[in-house]
Order: sequence, then structure tokens, then C-alpha cells
Amino acid sequence: MSSQPPHPALLIPGPIEFDDQVLQSMSHFSESHVGAPFVKTFGEALTMLRKLFQTEDPASQPFVISGSGTLGWDQVAANLAEPGDDVLVLHTGYFADSFADCFETYGVKATQLKAPIGDRPQLDEVEKALREKKYKLITVTHVDTSTGVLSEIEALSKLVHKVSPDTLVVVDGVCSVGSEEIQFDNWGIDCVITASQKAIGCPAGLSIVMASGRAIKSFQSRKVPPTSYFGSWKNWMPIMQNYEAGKPSYFATPSPQLVHALHTTLTQITSVPLADRFAAHRNASQKVKKAITELGLKQLAEKPENQANGMTAIYLPKGLTPPDVLPKLMQRGVVFAGGLHKQIATQYIRFGHMGVSVTDPNRDDIDRAIVALKEGITEAQAAMDLSSR
Amino acid sequence: MSSQPPHPALLIPGPIEFDDQVLQSMSHFSESHVGAPFVKTFGEALTMLRKLFQTEDPASQPFVISGSGTLGWDQVAANLAEPGDDVLVLHTGYFADSFADCFETYGVKATQLKAPIGDRPQLDEVEKALREKKYKLITVTHVDTSTGVLSEIEALSKLVHKVSPDTLVVVDGVCSVGSEEIQFDNWGIDCVITASQKAIGCPAGLSIVMASGRAIKSFQSRKVPPTSYFGSWKNWMPIMQNYEAGKPSYFATPSPQLVHALHTTLTQITSVPLADRFAAHRNASQKVKKAITELGLKQLAEKPENQANGMTAIYLPKGLTPPDVLPKLMQRGVVFAGGLHKQIATQYIRFGHMGVSVTDPNRDDIDRAIVALKEGITEAQAAMDLSSR
Repeated sequence: MSSQPPHPALLIPGPIEFDDQVLQSMSHFSESHVGAPFVKTFGEALTMLRKLFQTEDPASQPFVISGSGTLGWDQVAANLAEPGDDVLVLHTGYFADSFADCFETYGVKATQLKAPIGDRPQLDEVEKALREKKYKLITVTHVDTSTGVLSEIEALSKLVHKVSPDTLVVVDGVCSVGSEEIQFDNWGIDCVITASQKAIGCPAGLSIVMASGRAIKSFQSRKVPPTSYFGSWKNWMPIMQNYEAGKPSYFATPSPQLVHALHTTLTQITSVPLADRFAAHRNASQKVKKAITELGLKQLAEKPENQANGMTAIYLPKGLTPPDVLPKLMQRGVVFAGGLHKQIATQYIRFGHMGVSVTDPNRDDIDRAIVALKEGITEAQAAMDLSSR
Repeated sequence: MSSQPPHPALLIPGPIEFDDQVLQSMSHFSESHVGAPFVKTFGEALTMLRKLFQTEDPASQPFVISGSGTLGWDQVAANLAEPGDDVLVLHTGYFADSFADCFETYGVKATQLKAPIGDRPQLDEVEKALREKKYKLITVTHVDTSTGVLSEIEALSKLVHKVSPDTLVVVDGVCSVGSEEIQFDNWGIDCVITASQKAIGCPAGLSIVMASGRAIKSFQSRKVPPTSYFGSWKNWMPIMQNYEAGKPSYFATPSPQLVHALHTTLTQITSVPLADRFAAHRNASQKVKKAITELGLKQLAEKPENQANGMTAIYLPKGLTPPDVLPKLMQRGVVFAGGLHKQIATQYIRFGHMGVSVTDPNRDDIDRAIVALKEGITEAQAAMDLSSR
């Protein structure tokens, strides 16, 4: 039995439903942020992140900082790029526009390579762009939370290493880490930024980053100092290294409760083979996508290879908008999200299927959501038909 | 009976001991960050902050952002100053050096006005400095966590308004909000930055800021855009205004659990007269300071008017260092902090007396800590005497 009170299942693409133990860790009694017990907890969480990212290179550097996923963009723009640098931003939806905006804030010139809604830039287009200009780094949104579009990281990274070997490969994994496989070392990734509240399964409030040894070297050979203070790796790197080595260290006060919750979820995640976790997400996603097709609905990401495994963005039947449908889902105990991509926000809804809703056999969130979606859409269509008569 | 398991009382100058209900709020089941229930909770928390800061001017703007107190510095440096601006930083310890470092990161020229350890810059020195150069803003650490030095905000603010009326008055209230009175409107303050984990009594992870209408106007008339993305008020102001107006809004995902805990503690704080709260902190502080004097110990802040009410920094007897004493306090169930001011870090310890440890009549944390301090110091001295024989 869950220790949580009855509540609608939160099936938006983050925050997600959380495990009981994880939520209980949020209530941990107060501890000193530089005391031995908490230093151990924080250090172990950092080490477990290495496992989740499948990196064994000791030069890889994890960061866990109070903030949101967005703070990861600042960390990239302020530590890995310098004012005046050119960067290439692959666009699959809302989040590339914002990441580009973040770069511009720090005086970094962002060139966007855009794809039609529901699609992703193709490798030959990326290759062409990389041959035209020298980019300090390239960014790709692994799963675009606004469209449910999945990008292919391995092939992209290999292409970048071949065509423009000095360009750092930066992955926005806010909506992918924990639900999509990431082989940090094998794929040659230089930086992944993510957040706690999606498939990692810890309440919101932590910016989580993994940087490669190559990224750290690039950072260390900057011509000008980092252009953020709170997001500066100069300030945070010694702290993270000390915590992982079991030594107390202070730059800014971390959140012991959030770090305890992160420790709990990472302990759960790393206690089963990662392959099983990703398979569970693929299976749940297939079930959702099959049900959607059977309902006669279309996804924003039309091509199967573009479809994320942790969420689905679903076009509503013509004439229906999110306010017609979402309350009917809520009545049935499930919370979906509205559209986020500005051009088409009123035409679609988003269904997140990540974390314990997918991996915990005691939960039936996904099945209930599929039933609710079917009933809710049918009811909304009937109401529309009635009112248009 | 507390619902928390037995644990040593955390009496460092933040994080502090938390109320049971506040910790339980941290385990709140997952909610959408843009759903009506959470929007209401967040909006109410923002409105209660106005009460805590004693501001009734509707132009005042509260901000609550995932981060730590340090992020408040970035917000000031990136929103209220522009590259090339001069700012005056009053120095009472460790934190002024870091705030100055933060300004320099954003290209803002920080001039520090320093006082001897344990003291604060005097008003005539501040006046002289303000007459010598035009400063965009002046910063003062209300309570310096590294030294326990209290600054006098009302007189300082009035002086600034008289001598240099265009200069914004910025208060670092990380270690003061909730334990020291702040009359935001009456004293003419333009910005207070603080954090959740000290006298506000909510676990760490939130950067909390109050800006005056004048500060917001100054921000809106910037010549260049804000120089941070995650800390940009351009991004956050509409979000905060929407939440407070009950409208969902999105820039970056807030932490619903932390905001619930903030809501709970602010509900508790604002349910009793603020004057009672500040009196409770003064009384506890007097009790602590009397006990310290009776033990023959000295404070870093020698002059009574320089002494904070939420913490005390205590010089150890000659020959003793924090590692000689802190474990003996821990054995007695209380956690103090070591020194933080680099020049004298090994010569003193810090005792935080804030929040529920002071206001909850069911707790005896402070009395136990005074006994533990007496016994611990006596024992450490005896051990030293023995080893030096």
C-alpha cells in the first residue's frame, strides 16, 4: 500500500509520480551540509550518477546543484562557451529556442538548425552546417518535452567527432535521462544536462550535469573566466570532487533533503540492470502509442524513430482543444499536460510515461490513463458534436 | 511528540532544525507545477513573504526560485547592476568577499569598505565613500554568517537615501530574514536576498528575494539586458506575478515540495505577531550571550549593538580549536559549526539559535546546547591541560 494519500496520477512529462521511499527521504531530519553523514550521502549520489550515465572515465565530472533543468543551460553557456563563440543548436521544439536565448544572454552566438514540427534535423543537414562554420559546441535536445521528439545521440555524436572533432557534443537530457539510454563514454558525449523531476524520479529542485574530461579540459583552458557566478564550475568543481571524496566543502548550501531523495531514487535505479529499466520504458511507450493509433489519433512525432519512450505528444481530434479534454482526464484521476510548442499549443496534449508509473508493477497508472484518454476523448467529441448540431 | 526520529539538534547558522509539519510538507505527493492547486499554494507563499518583509507597497516584487542563497547575489549583480557600474560592498566577513567576487563575474566594479573582524563599517565611513563616487547600489550583509555581526539597516538606508538618493539599498538577509526585523517599506530598502534554510525554517533549495518598486523600475530601465539567464528577472517576473494572481505560468520548473514546505512555515510565521517572533529570538540570544560571558568566553562581535539575534560566533579559549570542541558537543546531542572567516577560522565556533529551536516551547534545544557548551569546553580544556603537563 502506498503511503501517499489518494491523488490523481501525475502523467505529465515531468514532474512525474514519485516512489513512496523517495518522498519520505524529502522529510529527512535536518543535517549539516558539511557533516560527515550528509557528505557521505551526497558523495554516493554523485557516484551513482556515473552509473546512470554509463561513464567509467574518472575524468567525467558530475554536478548536482540546487536549481532547475534550466540552470544546466546557464552552466553550458557560461562554462563551455565564451563570449563571441559560435554554437550550433539543433531545434526540435520550444526548448531549443530557449537554449539559444540563454546562449545569447552570455554573448555566445547561437545558430539554430530547425526541423519541421515533429521532426528533427537530419544528419546530412548537421554535417553541412558543421562544415560551413567552426562551432565551439553543438547542442541537441535528446527528448524535446514540447513535442515528444527523440533525437539520435549516438550517430549524431559520431558524426560530430568525424566532421568537426573539436566541437563539444552537448545533450539536453532533461526529459531523457532515466528513460532513454545514454552511453556517455561509448557515444563520446561531452556534456549532458538534466533535472531531478523527470525520469530520474526525484522531486524538482536539482540541476544535474555530467561533463566529460574533454569538456572539463576545455573549461579549464578558457580565455576568460566563467560568466556566471552561481553556475560557475570554478566554484562548484572542487566542491563536487570533495563531496565525492568524502570531504566536507562549501561554496553554497546544497539541499540535504533533495539530495537524500536523489540518493534514494538512484539507489533504486542502479539496483536493477539499466537495460531492464529502458526496456520497461520502451514497452510502456509502445503500449501507449498503440492505444493512441487505435483511437485514430496522431502523434506530433510521426516517424517511429523520432518517438520518445518516456512521453507522447498527441494531436487532438480536429475541433478539440486541451481545455475540452484535460478536465475529463482529471475527472478520471489522471493529469496530462497541454501543448507547449507555441505554434500549435492548442492542438495537442502531452502524456508522460516515466519512472515508477512505468517500472513499479504495483502501479496501474498507464493502463488507467489509456482508458481515461479513450473515454475522455470520446466524451469530448460527443459534447462537441452535440454543441455543433 | 515529534514525528522526527531522534537526532542531534542542528544548531549551526543554517540549515536549522525544522518543524514536523514543514518536513511533512516536503513529502507532498507530486503535483503539476502549472495545476490550479499548486499555483494557489505558490501564490499564497509569495503573498505571505510580503507580510514577513512588512511590505504593503503593491510595487514590491517577491521572487522564489530554486537555488541557494548565493543565487540571490547573481540576481542582484545581473539585474540591478550593469557591466561597468560601480557598487559599494560593506564588509563584515566572508560573505562580502564572495558577493564582491560575484559582481566582478558580471563585469560590475565592486569597492569594498572593510571593518575589523567583529565590527562593521561605521556610518561616517559609509557617508564618506558615498560622497567620493557614484554607486549604482550599496550592499550590506544584515547578519554575517561567518562572524555573527549584525548591521544596522534602518540608519544605513536612511543615510544612503540622504547622501546618494539614486543608490539602491541591497540587503543580504540570508542569515537575518525571520530572526531580525526588516521593515522593507519603512526603512526604504530596495532589495533583500535570502534563502529558505535559516530563520525562515524551510529546507534549503530556495533563493528568496524581495525587490522594491524602485528596484524594479531601475531593472526595467537597464541599457543592456540582464546578464544571467536562469537568474533573469525578465524571465521570472511575469511568472511570479502570474502565480500570485492565480494564473499558471512557465519559465523553469519550480520545486512543488519545497514551495509547499515554504508555504507551511510562512503560514506558521505569519499566524503570530512578528514582534513576538523577533522578541523570542532576542530573548534566546540574550540567554546564549549571557551564558557565554559567564563561561568567560568572548564573541567575535564584541559590541552589543553589533551582535546578531539568530546566531553567536564564539572565540574558543586559547589553545583550543573547533575539532577539540565540536565532537564533544556532538556527543551531547548538539551540532555547532566551525569558524568560516578565513583569517581566524581555527579560533572560533558558531552557534545558530533560530526558528523552531527558539520559538517552539516544546523544544529545549537552546538550554541543552548551553549545558553542552559548558561541559564540552570544560572537558576540552581539561584534556588540553592534561596533555600539556
